[in-house]
Amino acid sequence: MGTAQRKLHLNAFLMSTGHHEASWRLPESDPLAGTDIRHYQNLARIAERGTFDSVFFADSPVIFGDVGRRPAGKLEPTVLLTALAGATEKIGLIATASTTYNDPFNLARRFASVDVVSGGRAGWNVVTTAGPDAARNFGVDDQPAHAARYERAAEFLDVAGKLWDSWDDDAVVADKESGVWADADRVRPIDHEGKHFKVRGPLNVPRSPQGYPLIVQAGSSEDGKDLAARYAEAVFTAQQTLEDAQAFYSDLKARTAAAGRDPEGIKILPGIVPVIASTEADARRLEQELDDLIKPEYARAQLAKTLRVAPEELALDRQLPSDLPSEDSIEGAKSRYTLIVELARRERLTVRQLIGRLGGGRGHRTFSGTPEQVADAIQLWFENGAADGFNIMPPVLPAGLEIFVDHVVPVLRARGLFRTEYSGSTLREHYGLERPLNRYSGALAGLTA
Amino acid sequence: MGTAQRKLHLNAFLMSTGHHEASWRLPESDPLAGTDIRHYQNLARIAERGTFDSVFFADSPVIFGDVGRRPAGKLEPTVLLTALAGATEKIGLIATASTTYNDPFNLARRFASVDVVSGGRAGWNVVTTAGPDAARNFGVDDQPAHAARYERAAEFLDVAGKLWDSWDDDAVVADKESGVWADADRVRPIDHEGKHFKVRGPLNVPRSPQGYPLIVQAGSSEDGKDLAARYAEAVFTAQQTLEDAQAFYSDLKARTAAAGRDPEGIKILPGIVPVIASTEADARRLEQELDDLIKPEYARAQLAKTLRVAPEELALDRQLPSDLPSEDSIEGAKSRYTLIVELARRERLTVRQLIGRLGGGRGHRTFSGTPEQVADAIQLWFENGAADGFNIMPPVLPAGLEIFVDHVVPVLRARGLFRTEYSGSTLREHYGLERPLNRYSGALAGLTA
Ligand SMILES: Cc1cc2nc3c(=O)[nH]c(=O)nc-3n(C[C@H](O)[C@H](O)[C@H](O)COP(=O)(O)O)c2cc1C
Ligand SMILES: Cc1cc2nc3c(=O)[nH]c(=O)nc-3n(C[C@H](O)[C@H](O)[C@H](O)COP(=O)(O)O)c2cc1C
Repeated sequence: MGTAQRKLHLNAFLMSTGHHEASWRLPESDPLAGTDIRHYQNLARIAERGTFDSVFFADSPVIFGDVGRRPAGKLEPTVLLTALAGATEKIGLIATASTTYNDPFNLARRFASVDVVSGGRAGWNVVTTAGPDAARNFGVDDQPAHAARYERAAEFLDVAGKLWDSWDDDAVVADKESGVWADADRVRPIDHEGKHFKVRGPLNVPRSPQGYPLIVQAGSSEDGKDLAARYAEAVFTAQQTLEDAQAFYSDLKARTAAAGRDPEGIKILPGIVPVIASTEADARRLEQELDDLIKPEYARAQLAKTLRVAPEELALDRQLPSDLPSEDSIEGAKSRYTLIVELARRERLTVRQLIGRLGGGRGHRTFSGTPEQVADAIQLWFENGAADGFNIMPPVLPAGLEIFVDHVVPVLRARGLFRTEYSGSTLREHYGLERPLNRYSGALAGLTA
Repeated sequence: MGTAQRKLHLNAFLMSTGHHEASWRLPESDPLAGTDIRHYQNLARIAERGTFDSVFFADSPVIFGDVGRRPAGKLEPTVLLTALAGATEKIGLIATASTTYNDPFNLARRFASVDVVSGGRAGWNVVTTAGPDAARNFGVDDQPAHAARYERAAEFLDVAGKLWDSWDDDAVVADKESGVWADADRVRPIDHEGKHFKVRGPLNVPRSPQGYPLIVQAGSSEDGKDLAARYAEAVFTAQQTLEDAQAFYSDLKARTAAAGRDPEGIKILPGIVPVIASTEADARRLEQELDDLIKPEYARAQLAKTLRVAPEELALDRQLPSDLPSEDSIEGAKSRYTLIVELARRERLTVRQLIGRLGGGRGHRTFSGTPEQVADAIQLWFENGAADGFNIMPPVLPAGLEIFVDHVVPVLRARGLFRTEYSGSTLREHYGLERPLNRYSGALAGLTA
């Protein structure tokens, strides 16, 4: 970074017709966009035109909610990233994959392969996958407990890290004359034996352009933050207020330092759902139009499931019941649960109002305004210890991404907050992070360099 | 097919610098080709220019052999296929994946995604993965027994098939006005409970362009042939002589009929390693040059491992010992074991000669000659009940594929044996196979159509 001004990082969180749950019902939306690769290639190119650091896809190996009501099909994210790698040149490509329902050898190999194919642009959002429905697609009747999922996630990352380092960067000598292809001592078994995994290795893919994919994390519970502090290089988080975001930011930076890492090595990106129009009134009108397309009965059923109450207990025009369970008893997505309950209580929202707020961004902060107002909102958090950048979640796609790229990005650039062109070519370079050393040979390589 | 002449099918089996184990040592070979996506994109485009039905990649989740001696890195095949989908338009794309070291929900989803992204060009070569080394990357000390692997493979295919059919083709209604996205009755749990798997479903990807990927199989043991008879639409096989190939062909067609399927619905493709030059003598010289680059000590160690004897028991200039184990006692790749032993005995090969033959194609038939002679060899088997097509395994890549496309394909076309352009756009259409009906709604759809 040197003496240059600190720069903002922007990630485009892409999701079928947009983050607003009713976006598919707009006249201009393609309801089959969720599995249309050309739709995503178009979005990735728009984000690349806006010099975003990366695009990102959430994922769970299950259908969420009711296919009768909401678009449900999703391409497998490593396949999706690969298809986007061919359609773009610079932008980073981040896919979500579960440590609970994958196995380290196959998944480490898949991400290494995406990193190779994309020329060093792969990132992995490491999640533990809440909910019993996903478990049932893998022969398990209920989700493993929250703590057990995070324990497995940590060991999964250890195994994956060893596999990615199982080849030295310069292991391949390719001496045709003598017939020696690799220096066999520099491609080593990892012989991992732990509580959850026993893996011999080495990986059957050489060390990839970035060494390994950028490690991203997105759970904000206590266990989630501890995992992030140990392993993550970028963190997505849902924060509703500047104060909460500042508290989260300083807490996570402190935990990262306590884990023996440089707090600069972890980039914190809260989500924002920007509803943008040329006047504030138009932006609010747009938001209202979208909210009016939400089916309240269906949304109430979803909310009831998250809160673990019966739908009838949630009267649409009353506030939440006061006797909801505490976060401790939640085995699913702990931090999202707490965020929703606190949002409703703080703003004294009725169930109907809460549904509107969640329909826009599932707990992420919605912000309606002009391009300048959106840029102001971003700058305020960025300059006040709440964010290293943002996870941009357009309510409607492609329109919401286009308007952000064409009208907000120029403002951020003019203020000197955001790049005007890519200076690096790997995802880690975009985030201003160093290529990781190899744990087996890296220290030595560093000493002799 | 109607009254038109029966047409040959050609699959290009692609592998880094070529199938000859010493191909990487040639001056023109790129020893890093195995993980170079541009290399594979170039190969796929050459095969597409030659109107091949498909390209194909073998795979195992482990490093085979000695990285010191042979190129070892391999991109994960579904990632590789996706990258090729973007670089081609018509050609089919077949990847190998193991039923022993994958899980049905994730793998079914990945192939469905590749089928979507490629517009209906995906195929899956279903293998059970022999050998203890692969097992050790998945927490298992030795491979499961041969029969157990095939039993799991059959159930895996049942589960995957149910998941692929869990959405009706017309499940998505996308009625924006009423807010109904899909007909929820036409997206159904599969509630599979079997010996190896318990999977609720539905899949989180809608039914793909082909319904599901083309099912390919490549094991030739008794269990392997039975699996193929039940599920496979194309079969790769290693056959050394016309008589053996005819026996395999009629056996597998009969098993397919006995399983209640149309024997036309399974295409049998023996492998051939064509060493092509403008004269027969030049072709033989080329083959000899390649064989001379093989390191006999290393190849002997590999052969000893396959035969389950100590390397010292294989004297380079003598025939195989007569007291080798029988196929029954082999838990790895049974049919390949038998093929190697029979080849050596039939032709009274010394170990050194056997190593040369295996180095060319790992047990597949090597054929050296002019383009016309290669076409003759293909035609002979095709017209005499030994093959529906061939698995073309160029000894050197890209050169060996280029020469086949530019010099053998025109001969086959001139003889009316092979297409001059693609008539279909999906992989199944290339192989002259019907799009499968949906097992849950297909029969009904057929009745009402
Ligand atoms: C922007 C963002 C994206 C996320 N994407 C996913 C996802 O794709 N899949 C998933 O299982 N969890 C995802 N999560 C995490 C969940 O929302 C939830 O926090 C997590 O499952 C459990 O975290 P916790 O219990 O540590 O809070 C995401 C979180 C954020 C902030
Ligand atoms: C052309 C061809 C390609 C094959 N590719 C693979 C492969 O990629 N991975 C694999 O595990 N087995 C592959 N096999 C199968 C093995 O060679 C071996 O036959 C199998 O593991 C066990 O089969 P069997 O015991 O039924 O003979 C292939 C076979 C053929 C003929």
